[in-house]
Amino acid sequence: MSAATSEPTIVYGPKVNLDGVPNKYAGTPVVPWTPPEPGIDNLGINSIDTFAVPGVGEYTVAFDGWVRVVRSEPTDSEWAGAEVYTNLIEMKMVGHSEELGTITVTLNPTCLSAGQIRTPFDPYAGEGPSAKACRMAVGCIFDVPKMGMKLFNKEPIILTIDDVRSIPPAGAPGKGQIYRMLPLSDMAHPEREPVAYLTSLRFNMGGYLDKESM
Amino acid sequence: MSAATSEPTIVYGPKVNLDGVPNKYAGTPVVPWTPPEPGIDNLGINSIDTFAVPGVGEYTVAFDGWVRVVRSEPTDSEWAGAEVYTNLIEMKMVGHSEELGTITVTLNPTCLSAGQIRTPFDPYAGEGPSAKACRMAVGCIFDVPKMGMKLFNKEPIILTIDDVRSIPPAGAPGKGQIYRMLPLSDMAHPEREPVAYLTSLRFNMGGYLDKESM
Repeated sequence: MSAATSEPTIVYGPKVNLDGVPNKYAGTPVVPWTPPEPGIDNLGINSIDTFAVPGVGEYTVAFDGWVRVVRSEPTDSEWAGAEVYTNLIEMKMVGHSEELGTITVTLNPTCLSAGQIRTPFDPYAGEGPSAKACRMAVGCIFDVPKMGMKLFNKEPIILTIDDVRSIPPAGAPGKGQIYRMLPLSDMAHPEREPVAYLTSLRFNMGGYLDKESM
Repeated sequence: MSAATSEPTIVYGPKVNLDGVPNKYAGTPVVPWTPPEPGIDNLGINSIDTFAVPGVGEYTVAFDGWVRVVRSEPTDSEWAGAEVYTNLIEMKMVGHSEELGTITVTLNPTCLSAGQIRTPFDPYAGEGPSAKACRMAVGCIFDVPKMGMKLFNKEPIILTIDDVRSIPPAGAPGKGQIYRMLPLSDMAHPEREPVAYLTSLRFNMGGYLDKESM
């Protein structure tokens, strides 16, 4: 782990330019079927995560917080052909569990958490005809003081939102694409076997936040 | 990319000891419900992968080849509690497509492709009562000379086998856990946007191979 360095060593997708890109807060219009100019979206988020700790138990925790996502210039001014690349540049979510105590989730600075919004190759029957798919690969740190550990994922957590009709997909439900279990390691001993597993993650992307509430 | 270095910079799980671990070839018994001593399994594999190339088309290709997987000392001598960690140390699969030509898949040396076999937290109704789940996070290179490109994945491909009743799970079907699309980048321009996507992957783990057929 090299959390102290400023450049991530694990890069999950294209780096999105931050220079001169304006922050977007509460009051920013979200226009359906329209690729927006680049921006840094400051959005609410909440999620329900389930953690399995082998030999101890399985715990479901509700988290609430915010994210900052930078969006690229769309590849096309028309919605149908536009792709937008995203980087998750900051995150803070806090959850409380009787057994695990207070858990704080932030980004792992070792990773560039990156994603994209594009037209899927397999449109679902239930989706609008021009709906897009949003996906992001994320490296997190779960600080669990009661366990005396900061947990992190070596495989990215793939967060997805389907049926995307606006950018950002504010207010949309999403899912962490976890198949049965995703290993979590202890940052103090990253080379060792996993100490816990994420077994489920569902989230809701919130709307734009006030600058003051970040 | 630093494919020339011998130590991987992206590590998907615990490194498994290779020193003194024997190679296992055709004739090695596979004993159900029994954690085996450490070994390097030389196994056949075949898979059916679908690639989407934006603006060009979607192509399904059948691959055939082999893998070498090193297994750790089981954490328990009894099947029920045993966990086994694995590293995919070598792979070669070749497939042919009319449109994409011959495609050769090997491991990305930048990544330590790693996984594990353990009792799942969510046993399926259809699985044996003591069946385990096998998963591995893999970094690949898809050499596609007809495209003039070597493609690689920045997010690991998660290969899973369910209902595992022996180690190795020789002869078992498995799946790449791809949700809609997994981006593939061009090794010549790793910082650029993806040039293709893996949209589906199904595989069959074969049995032990003769040394001569590797």
